[in-house]
Amino acid sequence: MKTLIKNIHLITMDAQFTQFEDAFLTIAGTQIVGFGDTSQAPSEADFDTVIDGNGAIAMPGMVNTHTHVGMIPFRSLGDDTPDRLTRFLFPLEHECMTKELAYHSAKYAIAEMQLAGVTTFFDMYYFEEKIAVATDEMHARAILGESIIDKSPDSEVEFGGLEYSEAFIPRWLNHDRITPAVAPHAPYTNTDESLLAASELARKYNIPFSIHLSEMTFEMDKYYEEYGQTPVEYLSQLGVLDEKTLAAHCIFVTDSDIALMKEKQVSVAHCIGANTKSAKGVAPLSSMLEAGLAVGLGTDGPSSGNTLDLFTQMRMVANFHKTHTGNRAAFPAREIVRLATLGGAEAIGMSDSIGSIEVGKKADIVLVETDSVNMFPIFDVYSALVYSANASNVSHVFVDGKLVVEDKKLLLASVSDLRGNLAKEMTYFTEKALEFSEDL
Amino acid sequence: MKTLIKNIHLITMDAQFTQFEDAFLTIAGTQIVGFGDTSQAPSEADFDTVIDGNGAIAMPGMVNTHTHVGMIPFRSLGDDTPDRLTRFLFPLEHECMTKELAYHSAKYAIAEMQLAGVTTFFDMYYFEEKIAVATDEMHARAILGESIIDKSPDSEVEFGGLEYSEAFIPRWLNHDRITPAVAPHAPYTNTDESLLAASELARKYNIPFSIHLSEMTFEMDKYYEEYGQTPVEYLSQLGVLDEKTLAAHCIFVTDSDIALMKEKQVSVAHCIGANTKSAKGVAPLSSMLEAGLAVGLGTDGPSSGNTLDLFTQMRMVANFHKTHTGNRAAFPAREIVRLATLGGAEAIGMSDSIGSIEVGKKADIVLVETDSVNMFPIFDVYSALVYSANASNVSHVFVDGKLVVEDKKLLLASVSDLRGNLAKEMTYFTEKALEFSEDL
Repeated sequence: MKTLIKNIHLITMDAQFTQFEDAFLTIAGTQIVGFGDTSQAPSEADFDTVIDGNGAIAMPGMVNTHTHVGMIPFRSLGDDTPDRLTRFLFPLEHECMTKELAYHSAKYAIAEMQLAGVTTFFDMYYFEEKIAVATDEMHARAILGESIIDKSPDSEVEFGGLEYSEAFIPRWLNHDRITPAVAPHAPYTNTDESLLAASELARKYNIPFSIHLSEMTFEMDKYYEEYGQTPVEYLSQLGVLDEKTLAAHCIFVTDSDIALMKEKQVSVAHCIGANTKSAKGVAPLSSMLEAGLAVGLGTDGPSSGNTLDLFTQMRMVANFHKTHTGNRAAFPAREIVRLATLGGAEAIGMSDSIGSIEVGKKADIVLVETDSVNMFPIFDVYSALVYSANASNVSHVFVDGKLVVEDKKLLLASVSDLRGNLAKEMTYFTEKALEFSEDL
Repeated sequence: MKTLIKNIHLITMDAQFTQFEDAFLTIAGTQIVGFGDTSQAPSEADFDTVIDGNGAIAMPGMVNTHTHVGMIPFRSLGDDTPDRLTRFLFPLEHECMTKELAYHSAKYAIAEMQLAGVTTFFDMYYFEEKIAVATDEMHARAILGESIIDKSPDSEVEFGGLEYSEAFIPRWLNHDRITPAVAPHAPYTNTDESLLAASELARKYNIPFSIHLSEMTFEMDKYYEEYGQTPVEYLSQLGVLDEKTLAAHCIFVTDSDIALMKEKQVSVAHCIGANTKSAKGVAPLSSMLEAGLAVGLGTDGPSSGNTLDLFTQMRMVANFHKTHTGNRAAFPAREIVRLATLGGAEAIGMSDSIGSIEVGKKADIVLVETDSVNMFPIFDVYSALVYSANASNVSHVFVDGKLVVEDKKLLLASVSDLRGNLAKEMTYFTEKALEFSEDL
């Protein structure tokens, strides 16, 4: 299967930020095989499919480095309540989350991401086996880790996620688009033993390891009071941090934490939207980047960040970090687009195969149309993406060489079917959620 | 002309936040004449037009309290450069801004706002006569003020905006949807004389008076160094602040400024997106609201904020002010929707006629569809609007009883025609803009 995409403004997001204002791109099978100025374009007759970009911006598929795709049912529930996690999320998960609900939620969340130009995501949730099936069916690229936590809705035993992972990992080890991972929920919801066992599992299979880290004030207090350490120091001393580690949030990391993370080659999923919506704070992104950490953007779950697109995150990164550093020239738009693409690929350890448009890389490609009213004029294409665009401007999406969104329509499923299935599966959840909301 | 809108989730944004989950709304001429539960709906046979909302959220038209609709040509130009105002904006305005360019830019900007559910805006720019014509042609509601500033592109003389306003104001005084205003640019670009003359003009006609205030650090420094005062104190002492004053930005207002503004009944256009993109800072919104100031949201011009929709602003208000106050329960979503609707109407002095859905008020109504992938589930309709929705979810817009957007399509013009006309008019501007960008 050979595809030609013509009439595009191509931003490669390679190391030199190479771009072509009037360009073509060619795909063979799952790979990018060529691109360049339209004047150099091959004959259309040589291709099975020709897509006219009509002046769209073509960019690498975006990478959502941290989410929980099973949590669509929670969206817009108790958003502004102070004790949301303990009042709504944990109890409802334990009472109502099932493998069917996780599966239908995952399909819906993946549809939402694909329609927004997210082609790869890193997920941490429960019933991850069903989430892997959903990911496969939706033809998405993902790294998937079953949460390892004291109490989980898919296990009767403490830290059942370990046993779950033991079975889950080998089943998905050799998949084209799916990479299994090990995902202890957080330091404070694990024991030394469960953290060490999780780390050992990741090393045994040489797969990614992800954990929520330095996200909560109570977490910071706990490790300081009990050990006189930061959570990063604690995990480092325990021996679980290494180059396979993706730390999510890192809001409260200190300069010495950052140095330690650099030494251990830990990367970061920066979730500015969720972190600030919950008033937790603004992670020291400029310090992390200056120290040379690999950083990508994450939406967090649909209950925490509410949207699963990276346009919302890019705009938040710009406004929060310019304001935080007091410098309007800081974090120029193209650096922010880099965080959403190649930066994310680096953070999840996949920059050899995705994150930029280069010959031989996987054909994960997004077209962002420029016909809508918000996309004119465009003096700077990165500015247009960061400051003007939203998810609705995404018109075409390829994952692994396959077209999954065309003219803003999902090809492998219909949104209304996915919603219908999810809504049906949510009946008991919704009933309980409304009970929980009653005395608000 | 009588219109029935059926099958909607109606949020009235009245003082009690009254809402109806399954509702109808009726319009006669330019006014809202009824609404309520579907069980109480009148017969469809009595109406000229029946619109099926198909479960959409119906809300009052949003009010953009501060923008510069002539500035579409500047969008995405030099966004991340430190000296943008003096390097790009002022010189290009003086070199290239014409009445034709302002007119076509205004039409485009108004189209963009209508498609995003903004039915009323407060504009401050040059060639305001042409902007009024554009506003009238697009059937928008607006308060329009010619900038009064030392040097302007539409006058040969200093503070030519005063003379311009003298002619402009009486021509538009009795228009149904357009209210002329007096708009000195800022304290630091005016003299005492020009400010007093502007104030006198606003009092003579009893019309709104708007000014950029406490927006710039150099502005704060100047008034402190020269007068030992804040700009608010300076203007207050000069005698130009009163209940007709809408102060834009107010990033650096002190607690005593706020008390003074309350005493003088000054209202505020809060432009969180533009203020934080330019790293200026976060205005003390909670203090202003606690003091009882009328506050609305503003996008600022398309060069500063890049988008003209209030969904972007609402999400920014939530995340910045929750983080700023360290309280995730602060600024609950419905309070933020209030800022975008009734709060804005109060800030511009029009809450008697717009800003909420009440019988007898003007029929400025917006439907936000809930079929798109980002709009499910909805446990809280305000959360869905603030945390999930974007401008592309707006499906229908009525202004003054007239349908101007239907099924996401603009009815009074086509976006591609408006863009074509604007692009043609931008030829010289674009040439100069590219020259200015060359050594970036």
